[in-house]
Amino acid sequence: MMLLMLYLIAITAEAMTGALSAGRRGMDWFGVVLIACVTALGGGSVRDVLLGHYPLTWVKHPEYLVLTTAAAMLTVILARWMRHLRSLFLVLDAVGLVAFTLIGCMTALEMGHGMLVASVSGVITGVFGGILRDIFCNDIPLIFRRELYASVSFAAAWCYMLCVYLQLPSEQAILITLFGGFLLRLLAIRFHWEMPKFVYNDEV
Amino acid sequence: MMLLMLYLIAITAEAMTGALSAGRRGMDWFGVVLIACVTALGGGSVRDVLLGHYPLTWVKHPEYLVLTTAAAMLTVILARWMRHLRSLFLVLDAVGLVAFTLIGCMTALEMGHGMLVASVSGVITGVFGGILRDIFCNDIPLIFRRELYASVSFAAAWCYMLCVYLQLPSEQAILITLFGGFLLRLLAIRFHWEMPKFVYNDEV
Amino acid sequence: MMLLMLYLIAITAEAMTGALSAGRRGMDWFGVVLIACVTALGGGSVRDVLLGHYPLTWVKHPEYLVLTTAAAMLTVILARWMRHLRSLFLVLDAVGLVAFTLIGCMTALEMGHGMLVASVSGVITGVFGGILRDIFCNDIPLIFRRELYASVSFAAAWCYMLCVYLQLPSEQAILITLFGGFLLRLLAIRFHWEMPKFVYNDEV
Repeated sequence: MMLLMLYLIAITAEAMTGALSAGRRGMDWFGVVLIACVTALGGGSVRDVLLGHYPLTWVKHPEYLVLTTAAAMLTVILARWMRHLRSLFLVLDAVGLVAFTLIGCMTALEMGHGMLVASVSGVITGVFGGILRDIFCNDIPLIFRRELYASVSFAAAWCYMLCVYLQLPSEQAILITLFGGFLLRLLAIRFHWEMPKFVYNDEV
Repeated sequence: MMLLMLYLIAITAEAMTGALSAGRRGMDWFGVVLIACVTALGGGSVRDVLLGHYPLTWVKHPEYLVLTTAAAMLTVILARWMRHLRSLFLVLDAVGLVAFTLIGCMTALEMGHGMLVASVSGVITGVFGGILRDIFCNDIPLIFRRELYASVSFAAAWCYMLCVYLQLPSEQAILITLFGGFLLRLLAIRFHWEMPKFVYNDEV
Repeated sequence: MMLLMLYLIAITAEAMTGALSAGRRGMDWFGVVLIACVTALGGGSVRDVLLGHYPLTWVKHPEYLVLTTAAAMLTVILARWMRHLRSLFLVLDAVGLVAFTLIGCMTALEMGHGMLVASVSGVITGVFGGILRDIFCNDIPLIFRRELYASVSFAAAWCYMLCVYLQLPSEQAILITLFGGFLLRLLAIRFHWEMPKFVYNDEV
C-alpha cells in the first residue's frame, strides 16, 4: 500500500522533471507529454521488456498514463513557479529513485530471478527513465556526471537484498531500504559526493 | 486489402525519407539501409515489443525488409531527382502516418486492450519510426518541433476509436479515419498549424 | 565449446572498448560499467527482445555481467597502457564481431526462422552493441562511417547461411565463417576498404 503511494508520487515527480527537460529544449506540448511519460514509465518498461514481464505496467494500468500526462500539463501551466520548488523536486526525485529501485528488485525476485539479476533490475528501473529522457532530448545522460545517483540506486538494491537474505519481514525490509537510500541520496546532494571519474584521452 | 496496399506504400515512403536523412549525415550504404529499415519498421517493432505481440511484423514477413532495402537503394540512385519530389513525399508521408496509426490501433484492439492503450499503440506505431531515425542520426526528434504531426496521429487514433465505439462497419471506420487524418495533416502543412510550445528557462 | 571461448573473449574485448568510449566522455565509474555492459551485451539483448527469445543471455548467465564489469574496472586501472594495445584491440574486436554474428545467426535458426531473418539477427547481434554505445555517448554511430564493419558482419552471416545450405558439418561451417569474416575485417582495416557513402544535400 505505502509502496503504491510512493510509486504514484514518484511517477508524478519524474513526469514533472521530464516535462521541464522538454521545456528547456522548447518542445511542443506533445513532446512535453511524451518525454514526461517516458521519464516516469520508461525505466519500468525497459525492465519489463528485458525480463519478458508482460503486460507492462502502463498497459495494465493505463490510468498511470493519464496521471503522467496531467502532471506534464500541470508543469506547463505552473512553469513560472517551478524554479522556487527546486528543493522539493530533489526530495521527490530521491523518493522516486529509491521507490523505483525497490519495485524493480521485487519484480525480478517475484519472477524467480537470483539476487544479481534482481539488483540489476532495480537499478534499471531506477535510472533508465532519466537515461531515456536525456537520449530523447539529445543530451549525454546526466546521471553519469552528477552526484551519486545510480550508485544510490545500486546501494538501495543491495540493502534490500541483504534484508531479504536476513529474512526480515517484508515491511521492515522496505522501510529500511527506503530510509537508507533516501538519506544517502540527500547526503550526496548536500555534500556533493561524486563517484570518481574515468577520463581517457587517446591523443595524448 | 486496401490497408495492406497503404501499408506497403507507407513503408516504402518512410524508408525513402529515412535514406535521405542518412544521406544528409553522409553515412555509407549500410547505414542508409539500416536507417531506412528502422524508419519504416521501427514504429511497429517498438509497439510489438511493448505489447508483447510476437512475432514482429518483419520477422513474420521478411519480404518487407527486402522492400525497404530496395527503396533505400533506389533513393541513393535517384537522389538528384528527389528534391523535385518533395511535395509527393509529404503526401505519401501523410498517408503513411495515418495508415501506421490505424494499424497500431487495430493491433492493440485485436489483442483485447482498451481504448486508451489502443490509442497510445496507434501513436507509437505512427511516430516512433521517425523518432528512432532522428535518435540514430543524433538529432533532436523533429516531430516535436514541426507542424502538427504526432497530434494528427493522436487525432486519427481517437477518430477511429469513436467509429469503433459507434459500431460503424470496419470499412467505414477505416475510410473515415484515413481521409480525416490525411486532410488534417495536409491542412496543417499548408497553413503551418503548430502545437503551442513550452519554453522553460532555468537560469532567468 | 570453442564458440563459448570466443564469446567470452568477445564480450571482454567489447566491454573494454565500451569503457574506453565512456572514458573519452569523462563519465564516472558507474557510467563506465554501464556503457561496458551495454556494448558487450546490448547486441544480443536487442536481438533477443526483437525475436522474443527469453530469458536474455545475461539474465540466464548473470556471471557474464560480473565478467564485463570486471573488464570495465580493469580498463580504468590499466588505462595508461591501453593505447599501446590498440592493434590487439582491433584483432579482438574483429573476433568479437564475427563470433557475435555467428551466435546471432544460430540463435535465429534454432528458433526456426528463415535465412533472411537469421542473417538480420546475426548483423543485429554483431553491430548493435556498438550502436547503443555510441547513442549512449551521444555520438553518431561510428559504424556507419568506418571501414567495412557492418558489412563484414553481413558477409559472415551469409557465409554461414551458405555453409548451412550446403549442409556442411556444424564445426566446419563455424570455422569457415570465423576465418573468412576475421580475414575480411583485417584486410578492410589494413587497406582502408570502405563502403561507398551517400551524401545528400537538400539545400543545393
